[in-house]
Amino acid sequence: MEKNILLKIAYDGSGFHGWQRQPDRPTVQGTLEKLLSKLIKSDVTLNGTSRTDAGVHALGQCASFRADVRIPVQRLAMVMNNTLASYEKGPFALSPVRILSAEEKPDDFHARFDSRGKKYIYRLNTGGINVFRRNYVYHVAEPLDLEAMRRAAEYITGTHDFKCFEASGSDIRENTVRTVHSLEILEDDISGDIQIHVSGDGFLYNMVRIITGTLVDVGRGRITPDSLEDIILSQDRGKAGHTAPPYGLYLAEVYY
Amino acid sequence: MEKNILLKIAYDGSGFHGWQRQPDRPTVQGTLEKLLSKLIKSDVTLNGTSRTDAGVHALGQCASFRADVRIPVQRLAMVMNNTLASYEKGPFALSPVRILSAEEKPDDFHARFDSRGKKYIYRLNTGGINVFRRNYVYHVAEPLDLEAMRRAAEYITGTHDFKCFEASGSDIRENTVRTVHSLEILEDDISGDIQIHVSGDGFLYNMVRIITGTLVDVGRGRITPDSLEDIILSQDRGKAGHTAPPYGLYLAEVYY
Repeated sequence: MEKNILLKIAYDGSGFHGWQRQPDRPTVQGTLEKLLSKLIKSDVTLNGTSRTDAGVHALGQCASFRADVRIPVQRLAMVMNNTLASYEKGPFALSPVRILSAEEKPDDFHARFDSRGKKYIYRLNTGGINVFRRNYVYHVAEPLDLEAMRRAAEYITGTHDFKCFEASGSDIRENTVRTVHSLEILEDDISGDIQIHVSGDGFLYNMVRIITGTLVDVGRGRITPDSLEDIILSQDRGKAGHTAPPYGLYLAEVYY
Repeated sequence: MEKNILLKIAYDGSGFHGWQRQPDRPTVQGTLEKLLSKLIKSDVTLNGTSRTDAGVHALGQCASFRADVRIPVQRLAMVMNNTLASYEKGPFALSPVRILSAEEKPDDFHARFDSRGKKYIYRLNTGGINVFRRNYVYHVAEPLDLEAMRRAAEYITGTHDFKCFEASGSDIRENTVRTVHSLEILEDDISGDIQIHVSGDGFLYNMVRIITGTLVDVGRGRITPDSLEDIILSQDRGKAGHTAPPYGLYLAEVYY
């Protein structure tokens, strides 16, 4: 009997060419489809909620698939994690991908189409360069004015046409209106990190990285907070700030 | 005029096949010798204090070289770091190797032979698996009895023949006596990590990883603390605990 199963997945994206399957490169989707096809002994297609780019991480990516799974669903995450562990070299090596949970869903459920929204976290640090964190946090050399960034964030929160924050060269879409439910700039006193928490009903291509780059440019005084209103109205990618690098970005949560 | 220069170096060892130069694989020594030879326009040989294994990290590796360096020594670290940065792909990518300092030394100075001792740090964690730290901390599934580990550590501290903590198959050495000046087991309440800090006048091959594995086996009750006395006296590698994985190990400091 075919089941419809939702996986919640964490991954370190630094060794992957993104989520989406590619013929000759390691990707998260490719790794998990191969593993599932082997476990289930038939081809499996995973529908991920977000096609994260190369280097982008996930604390809670979601993906669903349909298959005649004989393994009890409550054991599936453990079995998958044990198999992932066996892919790594050495007796102690851990996998960059970890299945956090697996659950059965109604027949018509789809991980992407049924998602009501997502939350991303972006990590910045203005302290010295730390070689151990180079794949996990965006190092900004200048100090940042967090109050200016917070004022700018107020213009972004809400429902707007966000074309200015969409990667240029993206497919022309019918609709670039999205709702940003919340955009917070938090300080972690222990790591010294600045975290940008953003949740919304959906995000255009590179939108979180361009919002982050724009807020960083506000924080270092290259863009004034109040100009955000005009930038958004202009619908012009060229007026917004730079695109922050992928490795500071974490897909934190998917809402259903 | 030839100068004798000492570099202090931090690196994330997870992408390297160790310190020591190898013909076809990325190593820290190979990377830095190639860089220096290019900057100085003649072949450079780096003498590192410690030949760290594949996956082992450094907070303060030391290495010296002799060359007719025209770049002022006080600018050398910056020039090397800028060149290392240019090796990485993408406008924001950071290098896994960072030169912390460069200083001129007397003509007869040698980074390895003049070292009086070293300090290593080993990081353990008994919390859940964290995919982002898999290359940086040894995840132990069982809880550890830190008091038992501290009692065992007392037997290791001091001057002993440490043959039991040397990788089997190592070259026969004339002398396997070493002095462990200090061996501390510390808890970091924020990360939940357990850190083993060990300093000594010198270490046999894999000695810190075998000491760590033995302490972990004490912590989970497989070896009693008081049996450490017999294990050391036996000079038998087979009586000590397992070899902890490389990726939890950090060369922290070199003493001159």
